[in-house]
Amino acid sequence: MKRLLASLAVALATVALVSAQATRQVSLVIANGIVVTVDGASRIVSPGSIAIDGRDIVAVGMPDEIRRQFRGRQTIDATGQVVMPGLINTHTHAPMVLFRGLADDLALEDWLTKYIFPAEAKTVSPEFVRAGTRLAALEMIESGTTTFADMYYFEEEIAKETRGAGLRGVLGETIIQFPVADAKTPGEALIRAQAFIKEFEHDTLITPAVAPHAIYTNDTQTLKNARMLSIQYSVPTLIHAAETQAEAMTAQERGSPTVVSYLESLGFLGPGVLLAHGVWVNDSDMALIKMRGVGVSHNPESNMKLASGIAPVKAYLAANVAIGLGTDGAASNNDLDMFEAMRTASFLAKVATSDPTAVSAKTALQMATIGGARALGMDKTIGSLEPGKRADIIIVSMSAARQTPMYDPISHLVYVTRGDDVQTTIVNGQVLMRNRKVLTLDRAAVLRESRTWADKVRAAVRP
Amino acid sequence: MKRLLASLAVALATVALVSAQATRQVSLVIANGIVVTVDGASRIVSPGSIAIDGRDIVAVGMPDEIRRQFRGRQTIDATGQVVMPGLINTHTHAPMVLFRGLADDLALEDWLTKYIFPAEAKTVSPEFVRAGTRLAALEMIESGTTTFADMYYFEEEIAKETRGAGLRGVLGETIIQFPVADAKTPGEALIRAQAFIKEFEHDTLITPAVAPHAIYTNDTQTLKNARMLSIQYSVPTLIHAAETQAEAMTAQERGSPTVVSYLESLGFLGPGVLLAHGVWVNDSDMALIKMRGVGVSHNPESNMKLASGIAPVKAYLAANVAIGLGTDGAASNNDLDMFEAMRTASFLAKVATSDPTAVSAKTALQMATIGGARALGMDKTIGSLEPGKRADIIIVSMSAARQTPMYDPISHLVYVTRGDDVQTTIVNGQVLMRNRKVLTLDRAAVLRESRTWADKVRAAVRP
Repeated sequence: MKRLLASLAVALATVALVSAQATRQVSLVIANGIVVTVDGASRIVSPGSIAIDGRDIVAVGMPDEIRRQFRGRQTIDATGQVVMPGLINTHTHAPMVLFRGLADDLALEDWLTKYIFPAEAKTVSPEFVRAGTRLAALEMIESGTTTFADMYYFEEEIAKETRGAGLRGVLGETIIQFPVADAKTPGEALIRAQAFIKEFEHDTLITPAVAPHAIYTNDTQTLKNARMLSIQYSVPTLIHAAETQAEAMTAQERGSPTVVSYLESLGFLGPGVLLAHGVWVNDSDMALIKMRGVGVSHNPESNMKLASGIAPVKAYLAANVAIGLGTDGAASNNDLDMFEAMRTASFLAKVATSDPTAVSAKTALQMATIGGARALGMDKTIGSLEPGKRADIIIVSMSAARQTPMYDPISHLVYVTRGDDVQTTIVNGQVLMRNRKVLTLDRAAVLRESRTWADKVRAAVRP
Repeated sequence: MKRLLASLAVALATVALVSAQATRQVSLVIANGIVVTVDGASRIVSPGSIAIDGRDIVAVGMPDEIRRQFRGRQTIDATGQVVMPGLINTHTHAPMVLFRGLADDLALEDWLTKYIFPAEAKTVSPEFVRAGTRLAALEMIESGTTTFADMYYFEEEIAKETRGAGLRGVLGETIIQFPVADAKTPGEALIRAQAFIKEFEHDTLITPAVAPHAIYTNDTQTLKNARMLSIQYSVPTLIHAAETQAEAMTAQERGSPTVVSYLESLGFLGPGVLLAHGVWVNDSDMALIKMRGVGVSHNPESNMKLASGIAPVKAYLAANVAIGLGTDGAASNNDLDMFEAMRTASFLAKVATSDPTAVSAKTALQMATIGGARALGMDKTIGSLEPGKRADIIIVSMSAARQTPMYDPISHLVYVTRGDDVQTTIVNGQVLMRNRKVLTLDRAAVLRESRTWADKVRAAVRP
């Protein structure tokens, strides 16, 4: 009997050894989910598992296959849940969450000049943008956004909070002609932008960028200077462009028929430029955008709410322009939920073109992930679940009554899922939220301090 | 000392007695909420309380005021939460939740003839509609809908489940020219409809109705017979009308330029008629709708998803037509969330008219409550929080990151709130859900049996 036990022990030890040799230890395994890769073949592995080591995805495959090859120091079971790339919000103004619902149902110009600009003039400070970014980061983590492109003031403060929350950001320091909270002149703003770029150019999570606000808020020289700065440092240029019909007047005053043709005349257009909105573009604008390798951020909810117009998304897709989705700032949306952006992008394109096949659920999902990555020039590192890419991953519950039954996970992700269904959010291999508990921010404190800031905003806009 | 205590006791007893005489015992008090009444003056009482006795609201006022006058056998504290009228979904097909996401991104005709009609032919039965109605009821209770207007087959089975779940329903037995699951001929359907009306005409929660499917699925005589039946019993008539542009061809073949003018030529239009969709109407159609006291159900998400067109909501509102909101069936939406219907109605009207003031948050909220009640001819009993009306009330959380900070509860209800924020749902004074726990349905069983039905649906549409 003793002998039998002894040989059993040897046998077990051998199995353990063989197993240890065959399997590789990795930091995290997500097991048994409905893995929606959004890769080139739109592969869905269900059930599927993902092995993550450090910041990277090392394998995506069937659960057995992954189990044979990898052991996770941590394992997250995702049975019945969708595992997908984190959502990429290609246009927002994070701290403006502190203005959400402050002034609705107004024309863009009134909204900007009567409410937002005055409120900003009296409240925006490093402390304000930090508090606002924490609230926005909380909302983004809780709704499955893992990367966001931002344009605001004191962007270096936004960068610090973004890094603290663990999110990935393409963050543009605003360049604007008139005096604003962080710069009295555009020259000063350019100096700030340069310092910001130098501080963050080697950061893992932050890509610094230059963000000339728009053509109607900058003169020709400032636009050129801003673009030159970003070319000098090989960082992205973010700009509002062709958002409203009225914007073309500025271009026309400066001798070009459209916003895009005016930017072209300045030598502004090229890879690394992201146009936010791109609503009012004609065929030759579209050809320029494509030819110059410019990205577009489509913001359907903001465009609808502010009645700016309907972007020709079907045409952008047909032209194979790199187009992603954005929420815009929460002052004009009024939230940062990218699931709503997907749904609205699909619905709006269908009704605008009288074509119910215009932007399918699959296309909307691509725009919110790999499309956004392309628009930001980051599709080699994020936007899909593929070995070698960064582990920017979300796990989404599919058990609500409104998600029952489920014939097609892609349909459900776009048409019936909300940000609140996201259970777990991972960026660069770090778990930022697990089972709805945010790990990188003190939720109660963030909400409390946001309410305190709101009191100051109320005082600022009181007539 | 003893004497002092004794007189104190007497004094206290007297206070208690006076207080008992002055206060009235009621079944339920909802205390300390942000009470959004949607009454004629759009009154918001914050903080505010509501006294409910049996099925009725007996008082709405400030917490002190209500406390002095009423004692609730049950009290629900609503501090920091919105208390508002339950949402009224003026157009759906409840059991079609079992088809949600089955076939997306298709033209209406393909979707109907290639997927929905074949799937229905093979699966729709009394058991199917009961299971589907339980799932829909679960979703509606969980997302704050308290009344819904329905058009489907075996409507008497839908009625039984609706009553069981505790929801209020205006339920239309479908009349259609071709053989369907519950009737081989329209004559048979009319007989079924009559029996259904007789069975439910005195029900507290159910208003039976007649639902000729549309003009393109019924001949002239059937449309007339259906309308006559509802006039005979003074019950509503529900019909799909002017949903797609193609629908006018049927009217034109029958000698009228538009769907609405054709219905007028039959003597069909009058109080009690609800037109679902009403997208393709011209000025004289609109004048007819107003003159005849006809209601309209606006379904922005379905119209967008199926690319049917954009209803002239701003014009309906300007003409003071009784217009409510609907989700349509979950096969074309794909959920029953009326908060999304509000948001989409507002966004779509703004962008369609290039007017960001077109449908304000306040107007969207009115459409989803009192507007829907008017469209259904029920505005004397539901649609706002006023003494004497039925206690159809929802309590909505406002504590999500996306709802922080809060400058205006109406803005938040329309632009950042989802059905999942509803905490408590009350219909006719009965609490159907309390703190997200549904009390009238076995949630797990409803979801389980829905998945079983989905297997049968999958088998039915397999090529």
